[in-house]
This record gives sequence, structure tokens and C-alpha cells, in this order.
Amino acid sequence: MAMNGAQSLIRTLADADVDLCFTNPGTSEMHFVAALDDVPQMRAVLGLAEGVVTGAADGYGRVAQRPAATLLHLGPGLGNGLANLHNARRARTPVVNIVGDHATYHKNLDAPLESDIEAVAGSLDGWVHRSVAPAQVGTDTAAAVAAARDAPGRVATLILPADVSWGDGGAPAAPVAPREPRPVPSETVREIAKVLRGGEPVALLVGGAACREPGLRAVSRIARATGATTFTETFPARLERGAGLPGIERLGYLAEQVSYQLDGVRHVVVAGTRAPVSFFAYPGKASELVPEGAQVHTLAEVGDDVVAALVELADEVAADVAPELVPAHRPELPTGELTPQNWAQVIGALLPEGAIVSDEANTSGLLVPSATAGSPRHDVLTLTGGAIGQGMPVATGAALAAPDRPVVNLESDGSALYTIPALWTQAREGLNVTTVLLNNRAYAILRMELQRVGAESSGPKAGGLLDLSTPDLDFVRMAEGFGVPATRARTAEQLAEQFRRALAEPGPHLIEAMVPPLL
Amino acid sequence: MAMNGAQSLIRTLADADVDLCFTNPGTSEMHFVAALDDVPQMRAVLGLAEGVVTGAADGYGRVAQRPAATLLHLGPGLGNGLANLHNARRARTPVVNIVGDHATYHKNLDAPLESDIEAVAGSLDGWVHRSVAPAQVGTDTAAAVAAARDAPGRVATLILPADVSWGDGGAPAAPVAPREPRPVPSETVREIAKVLRGGEPVALLVGGAACREPGLRAVSRIARATGATTFTETFPARLERGAGLPGIERLGYLAEQVSYQLDGVRHVVVAGTRAPVSFFAYPGKASELVPEGAQVHTLAEVGDDVVAALVELADEVAADVAPELVPAHRPELPTGELTPQNWAQVIGALLPEGAIVSDEANTSGLLVPSATAGSPRHDVLTLTGGAIGQGMPVATGAALAAPDRPVVNLESDGSALYTIPALWTQAREGLNVTTVLLNNRAYAILRMELQRVGAESSGPKAGGLLDLSTPDLDFVRMAEGFGVPATRARTAEQLAEQFRRALAEPGPHLIEAMVPPLL
Repeated sequence: MAMNGAQSLIRTLADADVDLCFTNPGTSEMHFVAALDDVPQMRAVLGLAEGVVTGAADGYGRVAQRPAATLLHLGPGLGNGLANLHNARRARTPVVNIVGDHATYHKNLDAPLESDIEAVAGSLDGWVHRSVAPAQVGTDTAAAVAAARDAPGRVATLILPADVSWGDGGAPAAPVAPREPRPVPSETVREIAKVLRGGEPVALLVGGAACREPGLRAVSRIARATGATTFTETFPARLERGAGLPGIERLGYLAEQVSYQLDGVRHVVVAGTRAPVSFFAYPGKASELVPEGAQVHTLAEVGDDVVAALVELADEVAADVAPELVPAHRPELPTGELTPQNWAQVIGALLPEGAIVSDEANTSGLLVPSATAGSPRHDVLTLTGGAIGQGMPVATGAALAAPDRPVVNLESDGSALYTIPALWTQAREGLNVTTVLLNNRAYAILRMELQRVGAESSGPKAGGLLDLSTPDLDFVRMAEGFGVPATRARTAEQLAEQFRRALAEPGPHLIEAMVPPLL
Repeated sequence: MAMNGAQSLIRTLADADVDLCFTNPGTSEMHFVAALDDVPQMRAVLGLAEGVVTGAADGYGRVAQRPAATLLHLGPGLGNGLANLHNARRARTPVVNIVGDHATYHKNLDAPLESDIEAVAGSLDGWVHRSVAPAQVGTDTAAAVAAARDAPGRVATLILPADVSWGDGGAPAAPVAPREPRPVPSETVREIAKVLRGGEPVALLVGGAACREPGLRAVSRIARATGATTFTETFPARLERGAGLPGIERLGYLAEQVSYQLDGVRHVVVAGTRAPVSFFAYPGKASELVPEGAQVHTLAEVGDDVVAALVELADEVAADVAPELVPAHRPELPTGELTPQNWAQVIGALLPEGAIVSDEANTSGLLVPSATAGSPRHDVLTLTGGAIGQGMPVATGAALAAPDRPVVNLESDGSALYTIPALWTQAREGLNVTTVLLNNRAYAILRMELQRVGAESSGPKAGGLLDLSTPDLDFVRMAEGFGVPATRARTAEQLAEQFRRALAEPGPHLIEAMVPPLL
């Protein structure tokens, strides 16, 4: 059957097991949109802004462990989605962007929507390619999917000119095998084993795929057998935790925390991540967080088979040692006005088995990890790249990847407003996402950061820019505006009752929790 | 007095008459934020997302005719603001972006927020510079302001590493004169005069500064004296129109319209813009819209002094001819259920004197130009770059630039959702913006475009992606969520009553007008 470029593209995606496309299309993407109905396997999900589209693809990829596609409208569409693609890049999530562009012969006319798409896509440090003829779209698409899936995962962007999309001569291409994780030489494992047995204090810092059960079990065995202290990276893309799993602490966000966590350590072994650095620089403080005089050893680079290396290492140094697993324990349900402490206890007390937690609670969420440590097993998806506005879209994509699991989005007020139309997609698709929106009426993290950077002034203009209370934001009304049922909680009892009810009912819900700032 | 880089930056901005900064800052910008209180002339306005920040700077610059500054948070912050900077680029609005970055010594550590800011900023085809030492920030800032103001105006981006911001040794710099518009040689004017007198049909197409009163009066004189048909560019950054001004038609958005408008023309004279091209390419249709066989003549390139050239040309060919001015006339107030026709008549009937209209009504707004042609004098700010999500932020910035003028934002549902937190800034700053939100429950323009590109399928998946009715969006609740009073109109009488009341009361209002799709 004759097909155009767009049809060959979508068939190639589906054949490569990419069967979900998040989109906010425009005119230059209309042939792609029309071709969706020709490929029954492909599902298309609309986001009302591109930050929703790209963040949802990130959430989907983290949970499904395979890429979703996005369909974006030229340079401005890619720009709108860039921040959440940045987070996906840092999460090493496989994502396949299709960016529509002007027809090849239209490009030199400098029409209003003309811009340098390659420059913007190139900033993502992934894979970028422009398709130039319908007959090549299939091959280019197969290459894009493989590039996205190359270990450890990345953002691949295929630019699709409109005439290449609508032109005849498209031919689907067979899937291309991505690059598998590189095996770690046994010699490296034995060298690290020596470090662990050397009698000096060792910290083991793991990231990437090591943050899921098989890697964490190996980490726990190593810790028990050798006395090493162990951490996951600060912002794992996906961390498995809760009752029945090893409880490996995350490295802190603040340099001060890390300095406490790594105090006295002489060796830092990194696996699937890199030696820790400060999130930001601060005047007079170190940016590199490895304690002075400590040596860094690499068990597995990013892109190496970190899980296999950790298991081999555990078998070497902890042959007969079992991992230490967290027992089931939940906080008591608290009472009284909501506080930065007790709301987290409510979540810990009620978090359902198998939940996926999209965590963008920021300062309000400081106590969530301890409150949920012994809750039933769950996954946490964190803000990997520091670009806020991730939580709601990632929750949306996660719910599409795992429709049978409850998704809980712990979300802060300031961050929510970057991508709040994600709620509409949740309503439209009937997704089981319960959003707990922590409204502390401030960019609270920046109040802290204003002090931490040593900025001396804190006059009314500076303070005003960190305040979200004039006027107050009403997230209940906003959610209802997007078609999501919403309630407001001012006490722990209300939050518990509303959280229980939201989890019990199908479809999305939002609970606006009026929690004062932590700081 | 000793000052740091940030203090010298803000003082230099203020000395160069840049005294408003739109921002959504982060940690790397905290010293800039702290320094705001040291410079009383500088006003800071918070946007809840960067698309609001950059769009507001565009609206401000179009109305104030001088740049506002933006303060953005690293690459992701710039990315979030990129689409409205693209529109500003196409509007040739002077904008000075300050993009905070990691400290110089932190940059090579690849911390989570690290990305290639230069690549993203470079896509705007403007001016990009990185400040490397506190002592140079003042000079760099003065250069940035001059670059933004260089005729005809552009987006200038200054990257400010955190340690350059907080480091001592800052020194404010004196303003630098920007490049003035280039004079058009009289010989060129005389050549164009010959074309106009040549007896063949001529179309005169003007853009940029020519879309304001002095240019339009010259255009009208030329038309009356020579019989030339005259047009403004399709999407002027700022068009002055209404009773008492010449009524120069805009060139159409659709190639079909343009082909009708330019039918039979043998010469196209362009002034302050370029020969017309189609917004998008369509299969089997021409992208260049100059009729076959017609000659293109350039009176004034973009960046030339187009107004002086037009006045000189008018004095040459129409020495004693006065411009034709539009008489005051308003539509009757209509009655009945809202339609794509009658809502525009309500606006035309009630538009207040001196209004600034931020027009992103898209398909719903097709009849607005004729309905408001004889309304009291007003300015129209159009969607210059085709990246939707401009209307609300531009209205916000325009209201800050002209606090004594009523701002009317004609806004469509799909576009609004890109940057709807702009409403909160309007409420916070008490801006006199009346938003008429045309809710037609669809991406109606894409329904049209899906047909126009010749995409044959219109199956349920394609159709679903252009539908905004499942679930319905409730803009009244959304607006209230952002602190803006809102009402809903289903009839022309309701719209008239609500529009009158909104204009009479200070502060922002939103009217959700339930208008069926035009097509």
C-alpha cells in the first residue's frame, strides 16, 4: 500500500513498540495527525501545552521503560517543551520527539514560525536528525527510537518537514537494536572489592538503574557485609522503596546535608552516577562534595550495566549475606491543623500498595521520605533536572504507563503553575492520579536560597517576588476549571478523609492542602 | 560605593531607561533579586511561568517603545520563555533578557540544571553575550540595552553567571546609543514614485513602524493620489486604527485571501517589511504570494527609516492630497445567542477610546477588524510569530506600559491555556485588562488547517486531538482561581452588559464568551 512519510513514521514507531504519542500539534503536523487513524496500535494523547506533552513522555518512559513519542509544533513548540525535556535528559528517560517543521522549499522564506530547531534540540545533548525525504522517514524513525533507547536512555529528536510528512514514498523500517549497557570488567569489580575491604570508611553512591530492587538489594548486601555507608543519587529518575525493599537513603540536596552524610569517608565508590556536586554554587562553599582527601572510585559509569556490576560485587564481598529489608510500618494518623510535618504522616499512613509517587513537593516534602519509608512498596519519580513544572505531567504519563497502579502527585504551588493544564489530560483520559497540592503561598525554597546564597538585602521587592499570596491562588477552582474534582484540606483529618476518598474513586482528584511553609 | 555585579547591572539598566523587570527567578538569580531593593527606579513584576514573563516584556516593549528586562532561570527558564521571545523577535520588540547561570567555576561540573544557554538564546537570531567578570557587567548591560534598541529592535540576551552577579567590583556603565533607523536614499524614493506613476496596478505593503499614524497617513495619501492598493503586513506588532485614522487593510492570513487581495497587481512595493510569503506551505500551493509576473520593489528594508521614506514618497506623489480618514461609526448592539459574528459587533459597539487590543482571538476573531474599523481610535497588538500563548502576557505588559489606557484581550481558549497564569499577575498588579475569552471548545483553526493541507483522513483520533470539549474547560473558575473576577456570557446582551461593567471597574476581569466555532 502506498503511504506518505507520516504514515511510514507512525508505523515504524508502532513496530518498534512506541505506541503512545503525546502531542500538541499545529498546522505543520496535520498530516501526522491525519495518519494516526491509519495505525490502530498508535494511541494519541493531547496535552494543552507542550510542557505537559514532554513531561508526560518523561513520566511514561520512566515507568514503561520504553519511549513514548511526542509530536511538537516547530521551534516554539519544542521551546515550550524544553524544560521538561531537560528533566528527561537528566533522568536519562528514552523519549522520541517528532518536531514538525516547514516544508523543505518553504524554509528559506523566513515565514513567521521559522526558527533554528536544531539549535534548540541540540541543547538537550541527545540525538538530533532532520528527515529530508519521505522514503527515508522510516529508517530515520527506527534510528531515532534506537537512539532514544541506547543505554542509559536519552532524548532523540527527529525533525519532520511538512512536505516530507505529506509526500508519497514512505516505507516503514524495521526496529533497530539499541546499544545495550556496557558490561563492567570483573577486574574493576575486584578493585572495588579491595577498596571495600580496605578497612577505611567507604561510601557507596548509586544511581540510574541501580535505584530499583535488584540493584538496591545488592547495595544492601554490600553495606551489611562491609560496613560501607550507602546512598542513592539525590534525584533518582525512579526509586523503588517501602516495606520489603532495602531502604537506601538519598544523598541530600543541600551541601550541608551531604557534608554530614559523607563525614569521615575516605573512599567514595560511584556506580551508575557521578561523584556528587552541589546543585548550585554558593559563595564561599565548595561545589564538589567529595570530602577533602577522599578518593573517588568508579564501579560503573553512566551507561554501564550497573546492576550486574553491583550484583557481582555483592557476590564477591557479601556472598552469604542477605539484604536488610524495611519492615512494614506506617505513621499514626495525625490530627489538628495541617503542618509541614503532619501532612507527610497522612501520606505515609495511607499510601496504597504499588503507588507511583510523582514528587515535586520541594520544601513542603522534606519529611515525606521518612514518613513513607515503611509504607507499602512504591516508586518515587523525582525532579531530576531541577526545572520545575515536572510533577503534574510526569504523573500523567506514569498513569498512562501503569493504568492499574494508583499515582500520587505530591505537588507544590509554585511548580504546579508551570504546567497545570496537565489536569485536563488526566480528566480526559480518566487517569487515576491523586494530586496533593501543597499550598504554602510562597516560593518557599527561594526564601531559603536567598539566605543561603548570602544575599544580604531582603527588602520588600525581593520578598515580594517570593510571595504567592497576593492574591491567594485557589487551586480548587483551577482544578474544577480543568474538569478535575477538587477539595481543600486545612486539617490532618480532612486531608486523610479526602485522600482516602480520592484513592477510592476512579479518575483524577486534586486536594489542596493548606500547609504553612516549613521555613 | 562598592557594589556587586547584580547591583551594577540593575543600575545600568535604570540609567538606560529600562526600569521594569519581569521575572520568575531561581536560586542562581537571588543576588539579582536582592539587589532590586537597592535601586528605587527599578520595578519588578513576578510572572508565575516564564511564558508570562517574556510575553509581558514583548507587550510592554510594543507599547512603551523601549525595552523591559526579563530575569530568567538558566536554560530551562529561557526555554519556557522561548516561544514568546520568538513572537517578540518577529515583532522586532526590544527586549533585554538577563539569564542567570551557574557560577563560572561550577559550570564544568555538569550539575543538574546545566545546559547550553547560548544555543537556545542563539536561536532567537538576536544578540547574545555572557558576562565573565563583575567589573564588566555594567558595560555588558549597556551594550545589551543598545543591542535591543538597535533599529528596528530585537531580543538581546545577557547571560549572568551567579558569581559574576554576586562578586564585588561592579561598576555601572553609561547608556550606549543604539543604531538609528537607516535613512532611505531620495533616489530610491524617486524610483518608487516612478513605479507608482507608471500606470500599472501597484500594491503598497507596509510593516513595522509604518503601521502607526504618521506612516499610515502617508500611505493613505499615496493611495488616493496614485490609485495604489495598500496593505499592512498580516501581523503587525502594533497597528493604530479606528475613527480619525486611515483604515489600511491587513494582508490576509490565508494564501487564498492574499491571492484575491493582490489579483491583477503588476508591482508590489514593500516598505518596512518583506515580500509576502504564505504562513505555512500547503501541498500544491505557492509559498510566495507575489502574483506571477509582478515585480517587487523595495522602498525601505526592515531597519530603514520607513516612516520618513513614506512621508517623502507621499510628498513626491501626493503633495496636495490629504489622507482619507475613517469616520466614526459603530455597529448596532446585537441581540440573541452569541455567534462568531455578533460577539465582534459587541466589541465594536463598546470598545473604549484609546483601547489597546491584544488580539489572539484567532478564528473567532475573523470579523473583529470590520466590526471595530470605525470604533474610537485604538492600537492592535497581533500574534506576530505564530506561537500561541501570547495574548494574555502581551496584554499584561501593555497594561503596565500604559496604565491609563484600557487594555482589551481578545483571547481564544486553546491559546489561553499556554500562559493562563498571566491572569494572576494582572490581579496582583491591579491592571485594567478586560479579557474576552472566546470558548469555542476546539482548536478550531486546526480543523480548518487539517482540511487545507489536504490531509484526507479525519478519523476519530485526528478529530479528537482538535477537540477541547471532553471535558469542557471552565474559564470562569480558572480565572477566579488566579484571583480575577469572571463571568460567563451566552448571549450578546450578556456580553455587552458584562463588557461594559468590566471596563467600568478597575482591575482585571475575564468574560468567558461561549461562541460556537466559525467553521
